[in-house]
Amino acid sequence: MSRIYFDNAATTALEPVVLEAMMPYLTTHFGNPSSIYSYGRETRLAIENARKTVARTLNAHPAEIFFTSGGTESSNTAITAAIRDLGCKHIITSPIEHHATLHATEHLYHTGEAALSHVKLLPNGHVDMEDLEHLLKTSGEKCLVTLMHANNEVGNMIDLQAVGALCKQYGAIFHSDTVQTVGHFPFDLRNTPVHFITGAGHKFHGPKGVGILYINENVKISPFIHGGAQERNMRAGTENVAGIVGFAKALDMAAENYEKDSSYIKSLKLYMMEQLEKHVKGVFFNGDPLGRSLYTVLSVSFPKTEKSEMILFNLDINNICASGGSACTSGADAGSHVIRAINNNPNQVTVRFSFSKHNTTEEIDRVVEKLKDLI
Amino acid sequence: MSRIYFDNAATTALEPVVLEAMMPYLTTHFGNPSSIYSYGRETRLAIENARKTVARTLNAHPAEIFFTSGGTESSNTAITAAIRDLGCKHIITSPIEHHATLHATEHLYHTGEAALSHVKLLPNGHVDMEDLEHLLKTSGEKCLVTLMHANNEVGNMIDLQAVGALCKQYGAIFHSDTVQTVGHFPFDLRNTPVHFITGAGHKFHGPKGVGILYINENVKISPFIHGGAQERNMRAGTENVAGIVGFAKALDMAAENYEKDSSYIKSLKLYMMEQLEKHVKGVFFNGDPLGRSLYTVLSVSFPKTEKSEMILFNLDINNICASGGSACTSGADAGSHVIRAINNNPNQVTVRFSFSKHNTTEEIDRVVEKLKDLI
Ligand SMILES: Cc1ncc(COP(=O)(O)O)c(C=O)c1O
Ligand SMILES: Cc1ncc(COP(=O)(O)O)c(C=O)c1O
Repeated sequence: MSRIYFDNAATTALEPVVLEAMMPYLTTHFGNPSSIYSYGRETRLAIENARKTVARTLNAHPAEIFFTSGGTESSNTAITAAIRDLGCKHIITSPIEHHATLHATEHLYHTGEAALSHVKLLPNGHVDMEDLEHLLKTSGEKCLVTLMHANNEVGNMIDLQAVGALCKQYGAIFHSDTVQTVGHFPFDLRNTPVHFITGAGHKFHGPKGVGILYINENVKISPFIHGGAQERNMRAGTENVAGIVGFAKALDMAAENYEKDSSYIKSLKLYMMEQLEKHVKGVFFNGDPLGRSLYTVLSVSFPKTEKSEMILFNLDINNICASGGSACTSGADAGSHVIRAINNNPNQVTVRFSFSKHNTTEEIDRVVEKLKDLI
Repeated sequence: MSRIYFDNAATTALEPVVLEAMMPYLTTHFGNPSSIYSYGRETRLAIENARKTVARTLNAHPAEIFFTSGGTESSNTAITAAIRDLGCKHIITSPIEHHATLHATEHLYHTGEAALSHVKLLPNGHVDMEDLEHLLKTSGEKCLVTLMHANNEVGNMIDLQAVGALCKQYGAIFHSDTVQTVGHFPFDLRNTPVHFITGAGHKFHGPKGVGILYINENVKISPFIHGGAQERNMRAGTENVAGIVGFAKALDMAAENYEKDSSYIKSLKLYMMEQLEKHVKGVFFNGDPLGRSLYTVLSVSFPKTEKSEMILFNLDINNICASGGSACTSGADAGSHVIRAINNNPNQVTVRFSFSKHNTTEEIDRVVEKLKDLI
């Protein structure tokens, strides 16, 4: 049976045209972008064109876009800089952030560099905006607010404008982990009150090992990785030229096809919800799947039984890729910190299905059919 | 006129068979290595096999090899960890380190986390071992010694065993930036008293954007980039699978062809020295080119004249790639900190020529011919 890949929030297939755009930089165009001779200038130009493409897509200035090795490095850079360079002494975050944010903030808390608060969540998993305002209002210190734009496990999204406005009102620095939304939603950064956002190429059919950090032109930070003068002295190390070119190409394609792809993928999610409700008893959808939510992610809880406890294992045997939580913890954790925070029901077993433009309703039919057996 | 690429210390051409090894991970094998289903396990296996290959080549344990985004990140990780996790309070380094080391150590000095000393150099640019011992002996604090294995601009190499032995004697942590030697020299880490070494794929015909950090099994550090559980909790972020596979393939090839390639490349360097001495008046070779030196690098100083000051520009016009110093500063700096430190002669102009197995004596003849005109 051919493989069904329903784990696109973990990573996506590299698009053939993206690879095609990368190929010159994996073959003939290997010059070091920092070299002064013309041969290096070819790769320098490729990077600067990529930067312009990314900036245009996000409606930012090219000078606000920095290439990194991925979403995790980008978030570490922003969070660390807010504390060490921008005078923040208090981090406000949420209990359902990705580990990149959770562990970076905990680290700064453990070194004594910042106080750490976690905002309350509403029953549907959304950030309690009143509690956020309360935390900001009562903090005696300059705050860093770091809240993910979309949660990778349940899909819940914050309202970037509303959170940004609150941060502005209370003089806080605002970082948003947008790894699940860059390449999936339109951005208008020039009109969004956010200081830092992040992206990772492999989440929208680009390559692994490359990301971006947007740094609003009004904040000045020092580098996280020290060394050469690359990325205008902000991120040292010989550039992953092919990766950077691939990132921009994938983002450009995503923006071009946004209307078509997003409505198609959303229809898959809705179809799967419908089919599951119809055919599988006791299903429950985590988060706010029909509200402010990623159209790519569907988090489903099934009643816990001897059979359902083996569900991921059995899906795998049937060549169906889906995950229990975020990929980077699935091996290690006894469970998901996100699911625990928003739906701590010990009598349920949770599976995340996440879709891309390459999936079909036929695949959903086959998976639902299997799930009927497996539950 | 076809291009002559004599800047292999800046970066090298990706080897076609390396790209071939990477291709499955840029096409069909895109699964997230942290996913638990079999599809993720394919990429996990690729990474673990790459780790074994690297470990075998360097005679280390696989558990001592960590994949990063490049040499710069690796050095930042090691240097920061030595101070923050291993109790070092005093950094001993040299004035001719790569900016990755210089700027990372200066940063820790400026934050007040460590004292900073620079070891004296001998007239030929080698580290003055007596001064190193003096610094270690008189330091009241636990030291981090960070000295590059081979200098990227002049080629000078330290004696890893001798420096390591001194560090051991004085209880110091020893990090060596081996970015210019991994993939170019045999290593026997199990029998070398060093705590950290670094490598970057693009310096030996592997891909850009991937590196390694070797961490000796006897030291325990915390991650530099916090987040997911990748790299056994030591380096968070979705792995650059294709890059990692490419790194290992390139290193494996380099090890296999070491005897042949190194003696061929060395013959090119010697031939160029000979031809320059014969045909260009007043040439001077920096460092110790016939002693403990990279066989890949030749640093040449020419008498300063109106013509020679334009030499890099004119080489470029003639489609010859060579550099004034390290690539990552060439755009920015008024000159090289390395050349200033070892040959501060204002009446000379310096060019670094660096070779690979793809170069030929015919290319050297053409370059020397051009240099006769240009000087
Ligand atoms: C000696 C040395 N160390 C460190 C680096 C940094 O490596 P990367 O630019 O791949 O991060 C380089 C090359 O750029 C180098 O030559
Ligand atoms: C929401 C979110 N943030 C951050 C990351 C980290 O990105 P990367 O693993 O590419 O560093 C991921 C995915 O892994 C994610 O889903």
